[in-house]
Amino acid sequence: MERTPRERMVYSAVQLVRTRGATGTGVRDVVAHADAPRGSFQHYFPGGKDQLVGEAVLWSADFAAARARAYRATARKPTPSGLFAHMARQWKDEFTERGFDRGCPIMAATADLVGTGSAVRAQLTDGLDRWAAAVAEELVAMDVPPRRAKRLATLMISTLEGAIMSARLHGDVAPLTTVVTELAPLLDG
Amino acid sequence: MERTPRERMVYSAVQLVRTRGATGTGVRDVVAHADAPRGSFQHYFPGGKDQLVGEAVLWSADFAAARARAYRATARKPTPSGLFAHMARQWKDEFTERGFDRGCPIMAATADLVGTGSAVRAQLTDGLDRWAAAVAEELVAMDVPPRRAKRLATLMISTLEGAIMSARLHGDVAPLTTVVTELAPLLDG
Repeated sequence: MERTPRERMVYSAVQLVRTRGATGTGVRDVVAHADAPRGSFQHYFPGGKDQLVGEAVLWSADFAAARARAYRATARKPTPSGLFAHMARQWKDEFTERGFDRGCPIMAATADLVGTGSAVRAQLTDGLDRWAAAVAEELVAMDVPPRRAKRLATLMISTLEGAIMSARLHGDVAPLTTVVTELAPLLDG
Repeated sequence: MERTPRERMVYSAVQLVRTRGATGTGVRDVVAHADAPRGSFQHYFPGGKDQLVGEAVLWSADFAAARARAYRATARKPTPSGLFAHMARQWKDEFTERGFDRGCPIMAATADLVGTGSAVRAQLTDGLDRWAAAVAEELVAMDVPPRRAKRLATLMISTLEGAIMSARLHGDVAPLTTVVTELAPLLDG
């Protein structure tokens, strides 16, 4: 199924924010990257760049949440450490196949928008919460008590985000492998 | 001791990158923030903005490394979990006293520069390595075997970075408290 121009613009915004940050991503760049008709931007995004970046952030969060939810069906015996490895593998695969130019869009937009009073902060917080809720729900489905599941979701997402940063700086997936190995006994304990 | 104009410009660059990201930080903003003489920028930073941001990144990394090294003298019985709590406390104190506008400059510059082929990548990687080496050295001084110390340093810094992001998005230091509590048994185990 082909993406509509509107969908393509959201997807392009995700990819450009991941590479250049939100401040470095201009609306014209997004329209060109999406191969969208000139002048269509205002039609689809009357709220301007903030609306586009906000939607890009939520799209990314839902993608990450779906990734977490997909794990259980792939595992013979699902475990919290298996879930974390599954989340990290998405990034290891991406870095291995496509290089290290693209990081996490939530981290990128947080880094350059939250300190400036941007309206996109609402979507960033909402996105992170949706992702964390999905991870916590999966942990509960593996019999982790709900309060602990919420805490472990915070730990897992925090650690993953920092390891993504470290992997990009080193041009090496090793930091992701290290945190997956080190956290495993704690997550399954 | 008063800072020189050059030192003030590096410090101002750190603060602005933390708030707006590297792309959002202009040389003019830095000169104004530092209250430095107009025209002095080129004199002190012939390598332009890349040189300034590169020095800002290394200044920040050395600050973080010094923070890690300062812990042992403050603790009656130093432990790896105590070191991690000490690293996180710097951020809890900062967020509590000065608000959540300022994040980690290494994360901010990584997010918007690494994907664009920026020359600052070398200082970012070097800075992260210096910080991780300081943390690992401190762990070794607490009798953690060197190879494990290196792995735990990667885990601690990754988790701290992600928790900083989460704390900023929620305007709440709780994610930092959560990761410190959750990692403690693993770090001391």
